[in-house]
Amino acid sequence: MSKMTPFKELVSYEEALKRIHKSIKPINRTESVPIEKALDRVLAQEIMANMSVPPFHRAAMDGYAVKAEETFGASSFKPKTLKLTEILHAGASSNEVLDKGECIQVATGSPVPKGADAVVMVEFTERSDNTVSILKPVYPGANISPKGEDVEEGQIVLEIGKQLFPARIGVLAALGREEATVYEKPRIAVVPTGTEIQEVGSPLKKGQIYDVNSYTLSSIITKNGAIPVKCKAVPDTADELRTTVKKLIHHDMIVFSGGSSVGEQDLLVRVVQEFGTVLFHGIQVKPGKPTLFSLIRGKPVFGMPGYPTSCLLNAYLLLAPAIRQMARLPPKIEKTVKVKLAKRVVSSTGRAQFLTVKIRDNQAYPVFKQSGAITSMTEADGYIILPINIDVVEKNEEVTVFLLD
Amino acid sequence: MSKMTPFKELVSYEEALKRIHKSIKPINRTESVPIEKALDRVLAQEIMANMSVPPFHRAAMDGYAVKAEETFGASSFKPKTLKLTEILHAGASSNEVLDKGECIQVATGSPVPKGADAVVMVEFTERSDNTVSILKPVYPGANISPKGEDVEEGQIVLEIGKQLFPARIGVLAALGREEATVYEKPRIAVVPTGTEIQEVGSPLKKGQIYDVNSYTLSSIITKNGAIPVKCKAVPDTADELRTTVKKLIHHDMIVFSGGSSVGEQDLLVRVVQEFGTVLFHGIQVKPGKPTLFSLIRGKPVFGMPGYPTSCLLNAYLLLAPAIRQMARLPPKIEKTVKVKLAKRVVSSTGRAQFLTVKIRDNQAYPVFKQSGAITSMTEADGYIILPINIDVVEKNEEVTVFLLD
Repeated sequence: MSKMTPFKELVSYEEALKRIHKSIKPINRTESVPIEKALDRVLAQEIMANMSVPPFHRAAMDGYAVKAEETFGASSFKPKTLKLTEILHAGASSNEVLDKGECIQVATGSPVPKGADAVVMVEFTERSDNTVSILKPVYPGANISPKGEDVEEGQIVLEIGKQLFPARIGVLAALGREEATVYEKPRIAVVPTGTEIQEVGSPLKKGQIYDVNSYTLSSIITKNGAIPVKCKAVPDTADELRTTVKKLIHHDMIVFSGGSSVGEQDLLVRVVQEFGTVLFHGIQVKPGKPTLFSLIRGKPVFGMPGYPTSCLLNAYLLLAPAIRQMARLPPKIEKTVKVKLAKRVVSSTGRAQFLTVKIRDNQAYPVFKQSGAITSMTEADGYIILPINIDVVEKNEEVTVFLLD
Repeated sequence: MSKMTPFKELVSYEEALKRIHKSIKPINRTESVPIEKALDRVLAQEIMANMSVPPFHRAAMDGYAVKAEETFGASSFKPKTLKLTEILHAGASSNEVLDKGECIQVATGSPVPKGADAVVMVEFTERSDNTVSILKPVYPGANISPKGEDVEEGQIVLEIGKQLFPARIGVLAALGREEATVYEKPRIAVVPTGTEIQEVGSPLKKGQIYDVNSYTLSSIITKNGAIPVKCKAVPDTADELRTTVKKLIHHDMIVFSGGSSVGEQDLLVRVVQEFGTVLFHGIQVKPGKPTLFSLIRGKPVFGMPGYPTSCLLNAYLLLAPAIRQMARLPPKIEKTVKVKLAKRVVSSTGRAQFLTVKIRDNQAYPVFKQSGAITSMTEADGYIILPINIDVVEKNEEVTVFLLD
């Protein structure tokens, strides 16, 4: 039993996040994607406007393009009458130059005809055959969106590093761009360890269980802007782990699951130490103590707990922030709700406890069964955190629930 | 000008949402997808466990499988000594039946050998060659996850309508399922109207502008669990609109943009009235008054404002909830932050105003330029709502920012 390694130093959750934050290098590879596929991607190029938006002086209202000074003094009692020389529907533009005493009917979006410097809204006019009575004066520029009002040619509209939210996709479209250069999504190898792990879809042999962690980890990876590369289960032997690390280290990150708890099978830590540096092995949270984080040739290598719930909760807590940083995404904005605790909970001492709960009628009900139970999390709406120094939270106390999605 | 239609009745935002909610039928078509592609989809089948999880009694710790009663009375001063008959690594199982006076070394996850009813943690043992000294008694069942502890065969683990979050993908994997039957994503036709609309990638002709709304609307559709079907711009004539409605009504929803403001070009409302029922045309919010919502043969048909910012903000406010309901997704949980307003804002009277802001140093700075300006939203982190009855919000007043993503 001498080969069993105890945990050396348990770090706090905050310290673990800090070490991750210091170690992760954001991705530098870029690719060009059509803007309709660029949603939520991170811009790797500065976008300078190669044109003005709007590209011409546009009517901002339905009405009549006029020379503003010819409307001065107009009122419903004493209208100014102009000759209607043309009717422009949206999309059409005029080749005429507006002359004194004339007006041209425009639709919202029409280019403002030359010679006109304002639009009178249709509400303040009366038309009869070929003349239009103006009932209210307008100032020069009224109801016109001047060329470049939204974007001026040569202006920087989006900087490198901006995430392409819908509005930003919109500004790329407004400039007529078909493609954008974005950072590649990190490619993350997901490797279950243990000979007892069977692939979903194949029958279980004696002593085997299905691979759960690859699927939950891949889900977290996908949700946080990276690409999971699911790999076959690797037996828990030093040689196999060495070979696997060498084979997969060309990925941007490797995430092992299982194999990092204290035990005779716990070889991953030692193998990782041969190639690189362990930054922490074990954190002061429950569930999920045995999480391993290391760097091999600058690449992050995680060892997640084997138990499905521990693995998944630690993926939310530690892996997701690491992936987002690598993918150059901003930290996730936590969605929280404050509700009352439906029943008293007792925390284990010495570790921050992340307790899964479901919310019913504005009350939080603990749903945690045991760290092995994936069903602990299928009913969970979120989790509450019981800090290290809190042993008991009483029924009806207000708690903050961090919602899972 | 007699053909110009004024807005008949402006409904409040709440009333608009209510009418949408009453009108949308959730999608009923289903499809089977591999579980690695099923993330965030909505389950269309009940999942009954066809096996137990774990599928056998599993060791929950590294240690020694024993008969519990043989450890009773053990202490570090007076250990009980057992004969070590076999060493099981994870994934291996024993064919032996544990006999009196014997123990078998097990790893976390090992099937518990027959004849054993407890596991003694390795920490409470001492090994010498072929014997193991037990330093602490265990009760029957100690450190064992019994078969079916997580999921019992025949149990319903997931109900119809559950969204497949990572943990739920995990439970499907735990049961060995390769596929899940989920509801199809709604297919939503996106149609810009107006002859001035040019496709991204083609050069602009005189009076033309690029299609922005199709891209922002498609982004909102994608983000809310549906599939956008981008269609070519349609000229604003009654005949073209009629033909388009007929051609596209086999989709689950049609979203027009532009063409629903008051003006001579405003034909969409009339065309929609020929085929179906207008549920509202115009809401009491700024920007975005002219939004149209109607039902044609039971299918929702939206007419969004043509101005990019109005269009996008109304898509967040009205279209997204409609899509989520159709896709059977739960209402979006709003992410909000409370910050101070960096400068005084004045609201237009008579309408709720949605004012885009960016957040810097815990202060909200209005970024709204004008409803035509897509750049109004590219810098926005979120929006604040100025209710109908509020005219002014002073600098330094606390406001709730609804974050856009």
